[in-house]
Amino acid sequence: MNNFSLYNPVKIHFGEGQIKQLSTEIPKDAKVLISYGGGSIKANAVYQQVIDALQGHAYIEFSGIEPNPEYETCMKAVALIKKEKIDFVLAVGGGSIIDATKFIVAAVDYEGKDPWDILAKGAEVTSAIPYGTVLTLPATGSEMNAGSVISRREFGDKLAFDSPHVFPKFSILDPVTTYTLPIRQVTNGIVDAFVHVMEQYLTYPANAPIQDRFAEGILLTLIEEGPKALENPKDYDARANIMWCATMALNGLINQGVPQDWATHMIGHELTAMYGLDHAQTLAIVLPNIINYKRDKKEAKLLQYAERVWNITKGNTNERIDAAIEKTRAFFEAMGAKTKLSGYDVDTSKLPDIVSALERHNMVALGEHKDIAISDSKKILEMCI
Amino acid sequence: MNNFSLYNPVKIHFGEGQIKQLSTEIPKDAKVLISYGGGSIKANAVYQQVIDALQGHAYIEFSGIEPNPEYETCMKAVALIKKEKIDFVLAVGGGSIIDATKFIVAAVDYEGKDPWDILAKGAEVTSAIPYGTVLTLPATGSEMNAGSVISRREFGDKLAFDSPHVFPKFSILDPVTTYTLPIRQVTNGIVDAFVHVMEQYLTYPANAPIQDRFAEGILLTLIEEGPKALENPKDYDARANIMWCATMALNGLINQGVPQDWATHMIGHELTAMYGLDHAQTLAIVLPNIINYKRDKKEAKLLQYAERVWNITKGNTNERIDAAIEKTRAFFEAMGAKTKLSGYDVDTSKLPDIVSALERHNMVALGEHKDIAISDSKKILEMCI
Repeated sequence: MNNFSLYNPVKIHFGEGQIKQLSTEIPKDAKVLISYGGGSIKANAVYQQVIDALQGHAYIEFSGIEPNPEYETCMKAVALIKKEKIDFVLAVGGGSIIDATKFIVAAVDYEGKDPWDILAKGAEVTSAIPYGTVLTLPATGSEMNAGSVISRREFGDKLAFDSPHVFPKFSILDPVTTYTLPIRQVTNGIVDAFVHVMEQYLTYPANAPIQDRFAEGILLTLIEEGPKALENPKDYDARANIMWCATMALNGLINQGVPQDWATHMIGHELTAMYGLDHAQTLAIVLPNIINYKRDKKEAKLLQYAERVWNITKGNTNERIDAAIEKTRAFFEAMGAKTKLSGYDVDTSKLPDIVSALERHNMVALGEHKDIAISDSKKILEMCI
Repeated sequence: MNNFSLYNPVKIHFGEGQIKQLSTEIPKDAKVLISYGGGSIKANAVYQQVIDALQGHAYIEFSGIEPNPEYETCMKAVALIKKEKIDFVLAVGGGSIIDATKFIVAAVDYEGKDPWDILAKGAEVTSAIPYGTVLTLPATGSEMNAGSVISRREFGDKLAFDSPHVFPKFSILDPVTTYTLPIRQVTNGIVDAFVHVMEQYLTYPANAPIQDRFAEGILLTLIEEGPKALENPKDYDARANIMWCATMALNGLINQGVPQDWATHMIGHELTAMYGLDHAQTLAIVLPNIINYKRDKKEAKLLQYAERVWNITKGNTNERIDAAIEKTRAFFEAMGAKTKLSGYDVDTSKLPDIVSALERHNMVALGEHKDIAISDSKKILEMCI
C-alpha cells in the first residue's frame, strides 16, 4: 500500500425526510443563497421541502446553473453574493450544481486578479464561504468531496480544481428525491459511479486488499441495484443503495494508497466540451476501450475484476479479459448508455479536433503509468467510433 | 437501509515515515502534553521519532496509562494539564492510550461537578481541548472515532462515552511502529478488529449491500493478512493492511444504516473488569457463542457470512452455520486467542458474579433485537466455559 493522507469532514444526513435537517445545519443568522439548476426541483417536492426547512432564515435564489456548469454563470452568482452579502450557499441539485457552487464559494473569496486562474493555472484557493448541499442526482460524488469541474464554452475548455476549503459543510441525501429523475439521468448516474470506481481500481495490484474489496463491493452493488431502479423508479432501497454507491465511489476513500487511472475522464471531458455529450455518456464509451487498449499492463487487475465482479473463472487470460470487457460494455448498454461514439454522430472526421484539444490541455501522459501519449489516445478514440 | 448521519473529521496520515507530519499538524505555539503508556514506545523508535518531530514545540510528558485505562490515572493527567496550561495533547500508543486521552481532554473542559458523570451518568461533553494521535497498536479503531472506554477498578466498572468533541484532530498510522509488538498484542488487534466488524454485520439483512460488502472485505483481509503478520512481523504490507482494517472496522462507516449487536462487547467488558482478561481475549470467547445462541434470528446473515467469507456452500442451513461458527473459532485460535473461559481459569463458580455485574450495569436487553436478557447472557456464559 502506498502512503496516503485522508481527510473528509463532510457531514452526511442520509435517508427519507432528512431535508428538514437544514433548519439546524445552516446558522440561523446566515443570509443564504440557494443555488440550483433549471427548475426540476420545483416539479418534484424538493424545492418546497427546502423552503419549508429554511423558515426563519433569510434567503435569496440563484437558478439557471446548467449541466457542465459554465464559468460565466458561476461568475454571475459570485457578483450576486458580493452584492447581497451572502454568508452561506445551499446547493440543491446534482453534481453540476454542486461543482458550480464549489467554484462560486472559492471565487467569492479569491484575492487574485482573475478567478479563472483557479481552473486554468491551478491558482491556490486559500478560503471559501461555507455551503451545504441537498443532492438530487446521485452520480458524481461531488456532495462528499472537494473537487469541481467547470466549463468555459467560449474556449472549448472543461477544467478541474480541488481544495480542502470547498468541502461541503454538510450534504443531505434523500433517495426519495431521485424517484422523478429522467431515465437518462439515472443511467448517467449509474455509469458515472461505476466508472469512478473503475478508474481507482482497474490499474495494477498495490497490495491494498481493503481498497480492492471496497471498490468491488460498490461495483457489485451497482450491477445488482441499477436494473431495479430502472424497472421500478420508486424502489426506495435500490435508490438508496445507488445513491450511497455514487457517494462512496468518489469521496476519497477507495483511492487511498493505490494507483489511479483518470484517462477515461480526461478524454471524456474533451468529448463533452466539444460535442455536448453528457459526462457519463463519454465514460461509457471510453472506459471499455481504455481497459482493452491497456490490457497488458492491467492484466492482473482485469483478471481479478473478471473473477470477483463478473464471476468469470473459465478460459485463458485473454478470453477472461475479453469476457470482462464485454460484460462491462453490456452492463452500460443495459443501463441505457450507448458505448460507441457513432451513436452520437461523432465519426472519424472529428478525431483530429479531439486529439488537438487533448494536446492543448496537456493530456499527453495519461493513465496510472503516464504512458498514454497523444498517439495512444488517438488509437483509443478510433476504437471508440 | 435505515436513515443515518455520518461525520468523521479525523485526518489520517498513513504509511512509513509519516510521524514527521507532527511538526506541521500541531500548532507551533501550543504547549503539548505527550500521553503514553508503559514505555514500550521508548524501546522501539517511536518515542524518538515523536521527539524529533516536536523540535521547536514546548512539551511535557505524562506516562503510565495502563491497558484498560483507569479513571484515577486519567484524572492525574487532567490535573497536570490544568496546572501546566497545556493546549494540545498528543497520544502515542494503542487504543487504551487514545481512549484515556479522549476522556482526559473532555474532563479538562468539563464544567459539571464530577467528570465521572460523563461515564456513569452520560453527562454531555460540550467541549474538549484538541489532541492528535500516533497509533502503535492497530486494534480498537479509537484513532478514527469519537468513542472511549474507561475503567474504575475500585467499583469494578468499565464504562463508555462518546462525543463528537473528542475526535482526534489527526492520527498518524505508520505500520513500521507495529513490527515490535508482542505477539499477544498482534493477536488481540486482529481479533478486536474482526469482532468489531462482526458486531456491525452479523445481525439481520437491512438491504444495505455496500455496508455488507465493506464488512466482508475487512473480514476477508484480516483472514488473509493475519497469518502473514504472525509469521513475519516485518511484512510491511501485512502490517499496513491489518492497521487499515482495524481503523476501518470501527470508524463509523460500516455501521451506517444497519442494525448492530454489541452484546459481545458488553459481556466481554465485565470479564475484563472482573478477571483482568485482555479486551480481545474476551471477544474471542464470547462472539462465537453469541452467534451460536442467536443462530435462528441471525440465520440469513450467518448463511451470507458462511458463503462470502468462508466459502461454505454445501450442507443444510444448520450445517453451514455450524461450519461458519467453527471457522470463526478456529481463526481466533490460529491467531493465538483462546476461545474458552476455562483457558483463563474462569469456571462456572464465577458465573453468578458476572451475571450480577451485567445486571448492575443494566445490560438487561442486549443484541440487535434487545432480546438478550440476563437469563440469556447466563446461558451464553455457560457456553463460554
